Amino acid sequence: MKAAWLWSMAVAVAAGAAAEEGSMQGFPFVLPKQKPDMPLSEAMERLYTDYRAPRPEDNELFTQFKYTELKGFDYHDGDGTITRRDPSKVIFAKGKYYVWYTHRNTPTPPKGPQKCSDTIPSTDWDLCDIWYATSNDGFTWEEQGVAVPRPPKPNVGWRSVCTSDILVWKGKYYLYYQGFMEASGKRGDYCPVTASWADSPDGPWTPCNKVVIPNGPEGAWDQYTIHDPYPLVYNGRIYLYYKADADGAPNLVRMQGLAIADDPLGPFEKHPLNPVINSGHETTLFPFEDGIAALVIHDGTEHYTVQFAKDGVNFSIASIVDLMPRAAGPFIPDAFVDAKGRRGITWGISHFTNATTWEHNHSILARFDCDLSLDVDDPVLKRTGTYHRPDVYYRQGLTGEQRKRIGEENQRFKAAQKR
Amino acid sequence: MKAAWLWSMAVAVAAGAAAEEGSMQGFPFVLPKQKPDMPLSEAMERLYTDYRAPRPEDNELFTQFKYTELKGFDYHDGDGTITRRDPSKVIFAKGKYYVWYTHRNTPTPPKGPQKCSDTIPSTDWDLCDIWYATSNDGFTWEEQGVAVPRPPKPNVGWRSVCTSDILVWKGKYYLYYQGFMEASGKRGDYCPVTASWADSPDGPWTPCNKVVIPNGPEGAWDQYTIHDPYPLVYNGRIYLYYKADADGAPNLVRMQGLAIADDPLGPFEKHPLNPVINSGHETTLFPFEDGIAALVIHDGTEHYTVQFAKDGVNFSIASIVDLMPRAAGPFIPDAFVDAKGRRGITWGISHFTNATTWEHNHSILARFDCDLSLDVDDPVLKRTGTYHRPDVYYRQGLTGEQRKRIGEENQRFKAAQKR
Repeated sequence: MKAAWLWSMAVAVAAGAAAEEGSMQGFPFVLPKQKPDMPLSEAMERLYTDYRAPRPEDNELFTQFKYTELKGFDYHDGDGTITRRDPSKVIFAKGKYYVWYTHRNTPTPPKGPQKCSDTIPSTDWDLCDIWYATSNDGFTWEEQGVAVPRPPKPNVGWRSVCTSDILVWKGKYYLYYQGFMEASGKRGDYCPVTASWADSPDGPWTPCNKVVIPNGPEGAWDQYTIHDPYPLVYNGRIYLYYKADADGAPNLVRMQGLAIADDPLGPFEKHPLNPVINSGHETTLFPFEDGIAALVIHDGTEHYTVQFAKDGVNFSIASIVDLMPRAAGPFIPDAFVDAKGRRGITWGISHFTNATTWEHNHSILARFDCDLSLDVDDPVLKRTGTYHRPDVYYRQGLTGEQRKRIGEENQRFKAAQKR
Repeated sequence: MKAAWLWSMAVAVAAGAAAEEGSMQGFPFVLPKQKPDMPLSEAMERLYTDYRAPRPEDNELFTQFKYTELKGFDYHDGDGTITRRDPSKVIFAKGKYYVWYTHRNTPTPPKGPQKCSDTIPSTDWDLCDIWYATSNDGFTWEEQGVAVPRPPKPNVGWRSVCTSDILVWKGKYYLYYQGFMEASGKRGDYCPVTASWADSPDGPWTPCNKVVIPNGPEGAWDQYTIHDPYPLVYNGRIYLYYKADADGAPNLVRMQGLAIADDPLGPFEKHPLNPVINSGHETTLFPFEDGIAALVIHDGTEHYTVQFAKDGVNFSIASIVDLMPRAAGPFIPDAFVDAKGRRGITWGISHFTNATTWEHNHSILARFDCDLSLDVDDPVLKRTGTYHRPDVYYRQGLTGEQRKRIGEENQRFKAAQKR
């Protein structure tokens, strides 16, 4: 207590002294809220020009992420025969929360493109249907069963439908999802985006049986893949973001594009400045104030960032975060309300892939909580410095090959020192 | 095999098509190495202007970090009576690797500022001495015992000496460290930087018995604290970086400053543009090419970044990384060689605090490996997308208070929907 008192006295005294004596004393002890009028290093300059606030605590687009196991989902003891993954956004309708997701229930776990069959899945997202669940509190869910099953051959998605997301538009519900016409993995992941619509979130769902977002032209970054369709309402139009897998040498380059339409079933016009996000994997976006915010996870140079675009197109880094939710479907109270000053998000559903072992490969849904909302102020979620136990680091260990290389480099280095 | 062949064919065809048809087809499938001459979104523009390379694989300042348990250190079954933390840089001398660190061996774990005594520590870094160890391979270490003990009262550091780092200058060895004159925690962490020198890394060490880096003037950001001194040789002078804890409402603001000298024992002149790094905690820096690179960990808006300053002063973000080593002391082969074109780092020693339980509070040393070197190219360390098991996320759970708040917000939201 005494220490705390002395400290707060010291802060008060220092603040007074800094105010009185100005920049002659160097950068002030109390971090100014506005950029001080004095020469600054590039890093200090940036703190005031590149971020919404110079402190993470005051940055509405900075947060920690917290995770909670969901109740209500059975995974057959995690043996890999049941998967739930790629949750849609969460919506509130008929007094409940709704989420849609990729659901697989197969005789075995995935066996790869060589060993799959009409009933044995190739990948975790092969031989799937779109299922849904409802909840009163977001923690305990009741599975309602299938929303959109695989259609009969040769319709789009006869082999698998997956990675759904939801749009509410003029009183109707639209599910966008990817449709496979062969087992995933045989030739990359070609699976065009199609859609179904319904008058109620409980269905019945009517498939449009066509490709809604076409692949890009030959030679373009999105020529082979349009993944993870993610619709929002912005400026009175449908803004649908998607991922494409480009390049491949040595690794795929994952970036995000934007397609815009006035009707949920298209035509969608791709933005001429695509890609609009240079990194990321499963795209999570939400309207924020008068723009669009994005969780850029996992892949690329700007992974682990929250980004923001005042125009929904030109994104910049708003904060750097860690332990981000994967394939997150947030609850966005104003996702489809075309208003200014939208409020952000505080929770949603994400997934963990390979939840047990690779032999029993399957994914599970989980809840994440955060403070990316103008309506909530949770100081615990605004602190930096996530603490992990040592085992979390040790699990990211060197491979045998790396140990060998390092040993050889050590020998070479020591031999060179002797010369 | 077939899939891989088809894919590589597709990549080749696409690259040809893109080259022929140019920007009419949209952004090309193969990510151009140079900025293409076409309209770009801000994110794509940034990929070519703000980073060393548009892909993480090609960015010499991007890396994953891998961790290995060290052999050779005993922690008395992790009961909190022995701590090793805040490793110095690793140097190579007399055919071996050397590391110095804060060492505590006390009858009990830390008991806090109210319950500490002449023999019972307040914090994990109270009642400590500077010890050292040597190694042939960087994985197995032999502890050599004390290098710099606490001096007798009233010399600087009589209560505790800790957080050492090493400088080699004109054939002599200099250890910089913090010296406590009262138990840590009684009034924040006031502990000025002092130093000892020796002709050999094995000592004996002669204390200079003075404050080498003075605190800033009243009202300045570094008026109360100069922590984690970190000397390098740059432009023929001694560049010593340090952390100060500013502000405190609501949280401390941790930033990094620079002090420059021509003699290891000073006088050190603080840079007029301080702070030079706007975030971070224990400062890890290394010469890289013709500038200085920094690992900015844990605290502040630009945590989780590798940064670079061509002039050692004006740092910008070079990459965003995760699971960074804490208080890392890297092996920098050319740390004290005043040459251009320095090569970077591949490994070092870092610490984990609170390694078992809070009741047995102590820290342990560990090894980290990375590829932040021009001499190594390890593709595994250049991949993005660190995978964690679900339990790593679930351990970052909501508090009871947060669950309560979330439940109440849910009730309020649902009630508002009914109106």
